[in-house]
Amino acid sequence: MSQQPDSIGVRRQIGIYTEGMRGSRPELPVAFEDLEARAHTVMKPEAVGYVYGSAGGGSTALANRAAFEQWRIVPRVLRDVSQRDLHVDLLGHTLDYPLLLAPVGVLGIVHPDGEIAVARASLAAGVPMILSTVSSHTIEDVAAANGDGTRWFQLYWGRNRDIAASMIRRAENAGYSALVVTLDTKFIAWREHDIQNAYLPFLHGDGLANFLSDPAFRAALPKPPEEDPLTAIRYFASIFTDPSLMWSDLAWLRSNTRLPIVLKGIQHADDARIAFDHGVNAIIVSNHGGRQVDGAVASLDCLEAAVAAAGDMPVLFDSGIRRGNDILKALALGARAVLLGRPYVYGLALAGEAGITHVVQNLLADFDLTVALSGMSGVADLNPDCLVYTPREN
Amino acid sequence: MSQQPDSIGVRRQIGIYTEGMRGSRPELPVAFEDLEARAHTVMKPEAVGYVYGSAGGGSTALANRAAFEQWRIVPRVLRDVSQRDLHVDLLGHTLDYPLLLAPVGVLGIVHPDGEIAVARASLAAGVPMILSTVSSHTIEDVAAANGDGTRWFQLYWGRNRDIAASMIRRAENAGYSALVVTLDTKFIAWREHDIQNAYLPFLHGDGLANFLSDPAFRAALPKPPEEDPLTAIRYFASIFTDPSLMWSDLAWLRSNTRLPIVLKGIQHADDARIAFDHGVNAIIVSNHGGRQVDGAVASLDCLEAAVAAAGDMPVLFDSGIRRGNDILKALALGARAVLLGRPYVYGLALAGEAGITHVVQNLLADFDLTVALSGMSGVADLNPDCLVYTPREN
Amino acid sequence: MSQQPDSIGVRRQIGIYTEGMRGSRPELPVAFEDLEARAHTVMKPEAVGYVYGSAGGGSTALANRAAFEQWRIVPRVLRDVSQRDLHVDLLGHTLDYPLLLAPVGVLGIVHPDGEIAVARASLAAGVPMILSTVSSHTIEDVAAANGDGTRWFQLYWGRNRDIAASMIRRAENAGYSALVVTLDTKFIAWREHDIQNAYLPFLHGDGLANFLSDPAFRAALPKPPEEDPLTAIRYFASIFTDPSLMWSDLAWLRSNTRLPIVLKGIQHADDARIAFDHGVNAIIVSNHGGRQVDGAVASLDCLEAAVAAAGDMPVLFDSGIRRGNDILKALALGARAVLLGRPYVYGLALAGEAGITHVVQNLLADFDLTVALSGMSGVADLNPDCLVYTPREN
Amino acid sequence: MSQQPDSIGVRRQIGIYTEGMRGSRPELPVAFEDLEARAHTVMKPEAVGYVYGSAGGGSTALANRAAFEQWRIVPRVLRDVSQRDLHVDLLGHTLDYPLLLAPVGVLGIVHPDGEIAVARASLAAGVPMILSTVSSHTIEDVAAANGDGTRWFQLYWGRNRDIAASMIRRAENAGYSALVVTLDTKFIAWREHDIQNAYLPFLHGDGLANFLSDPAFRAALPKPPEEDPLTAIRYFASIFTDPSLMWSDLAWLRSNTRLPIVLKGIQHADDARIAFDHGVNAIIVSNHGGRQVDGAVASLDCLEAAVAAAGDMPVLFDSGIRRGNDILKALALGARAVLLGRPYVYGLALAGEAGITHVVQNLLADFDLTVALSGMSGVADLNPDCLVYTPREN
Repeated sequence: MSQQPDSIGVRRQIGIYTEGMRGSRPELPVAFEDLEARAHTVMKPEAVGYVYGSAGGGSTALANRAAFEQWRIVPRVLRDVSQRDLHVDLLGHTLDYPLLLAPVGVLGIVHPDGEIAVARASLAAGVPMILSTVSSHTIEDVAAANGDGTRWFQLYWGRNRDIAASMIRRAENAGYSALVVTLDTKFIAWREHDIQNAYLPFLHGDGLANFLSDPAFRAALPKPPEEDPLTAIRYFASIFTDPSLMWSDLAWLRSNTRLPIVLKGIQHADDARIAFDHGVNAIIVSNHGGRQVDGAVASLDCLEAAVAAAGDMPVLFDSGIRRGNDILKALALGARAVLLGRPYVYGLALAGEAGITHVVQNLLADFDLTVALSGMSGVADLNPDCLVYTPREN
Repeated sequence: MSQQPDSIGVRRQIGIYTEGMRGSRPELPVAFEDLEARAHTVMKPEAVGYVYGSAGGGSTALANRAAFEQWRIVPRVLRDVSQRDLHVDLLGHTLDYPLLLAPVGVLGIVHPDGEIAVARASLAAGVPMILSTVSSHTIEDVAAANGDGTRWFQLYWGRNRDIAASMIRRAENAGYSALVVTLDTKFIAWREHDIQNAYLPFLHGDGLANFLSDPAFRAALPKPPEEDPLTAIRYFASIFTDPSLMWSDLAWLRSNTRLPIVLKGIQHADDARIAFDHGVNAIIVSNHGGRQVDGAVASLDCLEAAVAAAGDMPVLFDSGIRRGNDILKALALGARAVLLGRPYVYGLALAGEAGITHVVQNLLADFDLTVALSGMSGVADLNPDCLVYTPREN
Repeated sequence: MSQQPDSIGVRRQIGIYTEGMRGSRPELPVAFEDLEARAHTVMKPEAVGYVYGSAGGGSTALANRAAFEQWRIVPRVLRDVSQRDLHVDLLGHTLDYPLLLAPVGVLGIVHPDGEIAVARASLAAGVPMILSTVSSHTIEDVAAANGDGTRWFQLYWGRNRDIAASMIRRAENAGYSALVVTLDTKFIAWREHDIQNAYLPFLHGDGLANFLSDPAFRAALPKPPEEDPLTAIRYFASIFTDPSLMWSDLAWLRSNTRLPIVLKGIQHADDARIAFDHGVNAIIVSNHGGRQVDGAVASLDCLEAAVAAAGDMPVLFDSGIRRGNDILKALALGARAVLLGRPYVYGLALAGEAGITHVVQNLLADFDLTVALSGMSGVADLNPDCLVYTPREN
Repeated sequence: MSQQPDSIGVRRQIGIYTEGMRGSRPELPVAFEDLEARAHTVMKPEAVGYVYGSAGGGSTALANRAAFEQWRIVPRVLRDVSQRDLHVDLLGHTLDYPLLLAPVGVLGIVHPDGEIAVARASLAAGVPMILSTVSSHTIEDVAAANGDGTRWFQLYWGRNRDIAASMIRRAENAGYSALVVTLDTKFIAWREHDIQNAYLPFLHGDGLANFLSDPAFRAALPKPPEEDPLTAIRYFASIFTDPSLMWSDLAWLRSNTRLPIVLKGIQHADDARIAFDHGVNAIIVSNHGGRQVDGAVASLDCLEAAVAAAGDMPVLFDSGIRRGNDILKALALGARAVLLGRPYVYGLALAGEAGITHVVQNLLADFDLTVALSGMSGVADLNPDCLVYTPREN
């Protein structure tokens, strides 16, 4: 679907010029920093620790943002930017915008509507969602709320393959159109906020919804979870991940699904190359928003080399997207599209579906305007020549 | 006109030594940071958001300042600096100082005298002004206040060419001696303060003064603005800019004015080269003070390459000038002159014309002293050898 | 001894998932910054000044941490990390983890149990301790508390060689298995906190315990210390260090002990090479946690060159270890193991032996998880290719 | 005079170890930052503005300190450092330490004893002083207080050469042994604190003492200053500096004095070379503590190139010395000795002569210890190999 000339950015501006922001939520913050600060005031402290907290001392989360500051846009002038084509083709879909909502677990801890709200906002905005295995609402309920929207399923592929196979079948049946396998969470990292709070988020916010509703999970238990919840929890913990997974295991996955396979959490170019060699359909360069390896390289610093190593396999980008120019930079460095994480969670925390819509629409308007003001008429114009690298503090 | 030996700096110092600062405004802040903080206390919050606020997260505004810190002056000694010749030749004018007052829109939102105060201060200081299309006072009224001063007209060249042509004629008739075409505002950027405040500055402070007084604008409306103001505002919004403008459109502009054409908002060296190839009379390297593209390269980082690409076309510099040494650095890197923006607006906010004079006179004295103390006897001595690049945090 | 598959990290996580942190101390801080801040609230101001304070203005301590930030881990994916082998071979020992507790003087000033608590925690955690010459408890008492643990003795080798020889014999007899000779403390540095507080820590917290209990020390005095304590103190001060010590003096040391000799405080690669040429058994790259030379190079910045110059002599690392990823980075750059300093002292200050255990177990779990999440199955996989150098602020 | 083995550092440490700091001033701050903060509490606001304030926005003062952070000491071990020879030969003198007290004007504004206290402290510490032309006490009174000390005279060589010649004669007669000609103050810079305070320090604190006592100055006036002070002040202002001074004018100076000539304020290597070619006896690389040209290069960043260009002419260093390692770094980069400025002024403000002594003795002890702990046995061992350059934030 090609971009209409009167895009969000333009409509919004005319709105400002004449009658105020149509569809805006004036009571919600616009700046990301304000959004985050405000959301923290309404979230439970444990939820703040889980969402805001990163691995260890937070060094990777800081690095993610610093990396963006090093790359600077060099705008061009006197080009026709009256229409911007922001669409991207990805795994058989044509997305209106190069944006997806990243999988975030147990959103029930920040808002009772959780992933249901995400599904509705995703549908309304035309921005695909990726549902986490550890969501607070089931695969099927989220699919129903997402309707004709584009949705992918993120798979935590643990020690019990029957459960993984069952989850995949459920996702296929519920209209999820790609499997996102997260590779960087073979263990939950050393997250100091959660440890300090003795808080395991998956035990809150209905985090086991997909497991408790899964026939293969129930079959693996001696008694139904309703009768013996502690055993269910222990079993979940023991099979949640599989630290022994290797590249060769991808063959099992491929033989158990007809969906395209997307690997999330690639950082090293050699791993991008190996993924390509294994016929993976797409990869997501990501360090899990700095939540897994403290002291890791910034995700953006991995992007160019991963793209170079990935052949014609699409490379998505995740970790650190906060504003429109971040999207422009990631795309200029080779990403096909980007994933948005914490910002939409803060929107959800503040106002449910409407909060997500507020955040996503603002980000798209910001991105659209930034593309136009950089002298580009669309995503196809973005390449490394749009940027200059200035390795210093700003 | 050559510089008199007893320049502002010297006079001011003798003033300090003997009788106090003659003509100074001791009640106004000297340091830019103090000036800004004090001005914010007297401005309406929405005006603070508009003037202080930058695009997006403010990354470009920070980069503008950081770029200056990387370039350091290497002073020379035992040279005769008793007289400094600070004049520059520019588009047929001989300016006493390499300084112009940048076009800033709707100054009526910070002080009722707005551009009238600017015009008077400009005349008194011998520093040319550039009037914005969206000024709070009309082209003609400002010209009258500016008298024999040097003034240029900044053109927002929108979708209705009759209005553009009418504005050009009015400027020519009112003694404006150059047309400054701003290229980096095909849309108003994602300015988070204004969006949060739901504030469109042009609807305040008489921001439509030049449109409401324009016969071509009135002719384009079904009814006079007095009778149907909302239609007038909507029409203004629809034709204010023209996102489809291209280099080839410059021919129309050239054929519709006898004035020299100055392009403002060039950042890429290739655009400087294209401007030169189109016979443009001068360019202004600028990123609109960080107000348009968040994440853009610092304006100063674009200067050298733009100068190298510009042939004998004069290159002015804008975005980030705060103190005398900033002017010295920009000139050493090839700028013919620089534009001053926010600082004089803060002076205006605090004390009208006298506040602008205070800011401009201080800046000139600071610049003059810095030139002298760097061992230079004038603008002609400034070149890249005056500086050293130290790419680190200071 | 090879690492068991169910390592600390895994056990701890299952603990989190199911029953809360087994053996954790929820009342103690997890984040180093919190630990430090909390510890300062329970320590005497003079002890804070001594432990926290660095040489001069603290520039070296800051540099130590900044150096870690420049090196970033590039994790790998889809490798079997279900078991991590964290053991290292060192001077005839097989350590479970590449970690030792650094020698820290007069721990009696932060907790009455002092080095006795360290000895017990060291034994329990399987992490060797290095006892300082100026400990608050005697060589023999600490050995008794450490039992079957691995312990080394840190020697301040002063002007009276009879005393040094006596200390060595006592250490040998008490089961210490290596001598660590600290080279960077020929004088106590210009430590501004201690000078401001007029605080010599060795005169507090039983800092002379090993001297007062030493027959050679007592023999050097005209009267027993009980009768003439001031003379004993003066004599201690006069012979505590020997600023004239040179490489050639190592021969005396070698001829007076059967223990391996470890030199602590090497920073220059040439000194690593000289140590190797003198047959030293191991060196510790360290700047004493920034406590000796203000303005010195970061310890981590010395590591690679020292390793390259050290031949097959093991190189340990000290100065700046705070979290698990710091250990990973130091090992990737060639360290055989690392020393932990201030963090365990803060644990001691807060909760005695239990506080040290809390800090050490947390650090090991963090390290184990970081190794696994970086895609490494143990210490043997760590090398410079695991890292990328990004010389900028993050 | 060679350095005694039992230097300040050693004596002071034994003092700490046994009986407390002999001769220390426990009520005065040790850390420079504390010293500065405390001094500001006892100084008049205008004096704080003058002493603390730098040119413009203070960028150069910040750069001066940042430059030191980039150079890091790499200590050596197992060298005999029991005796440190800190002496330097300079213009026929043998100084005990490579340190001089920089010329600072009108010290009467911070303490009534002003330069008299400096003279006494200089004598007591064996650290030469350089008296400013605009001192609060006369050339002759300061000389009397300095007795057998080494003192130089700093000359502001203004438009009236009779006065300059008279000052030179007075300095020669009073036992000053070198002339320091300050080159970087042809004008007083744009000092925002002083301008905001409308404060000309020379009109306070008896700043004209040397002029009012000078026969040539009095001869140039129509009436004695007692009868017509305003005319005297105006005349002072008009002749205080001579912005037209050039290299060729040095011949006049040479012909009017038998003293060695030292040029202060050199930053460009070409100026160092020109000074050498003119037979100047020594130069001082300095940017006046960041007080003259805002945005100038850090003084330390000029040092190496100036030394390389200076042939066998001694190069001193000024601007940014705060602690012992700063001295070590400047000497390692080629400085023969360094000048101390603001720190001793703060000592003076807090406690007169005793405060200066406190600051100077502390600095020397810190320097001595840092030399020893870096493995150097004296100033002769310092060279660029002692340092490594790490151009990053620490």
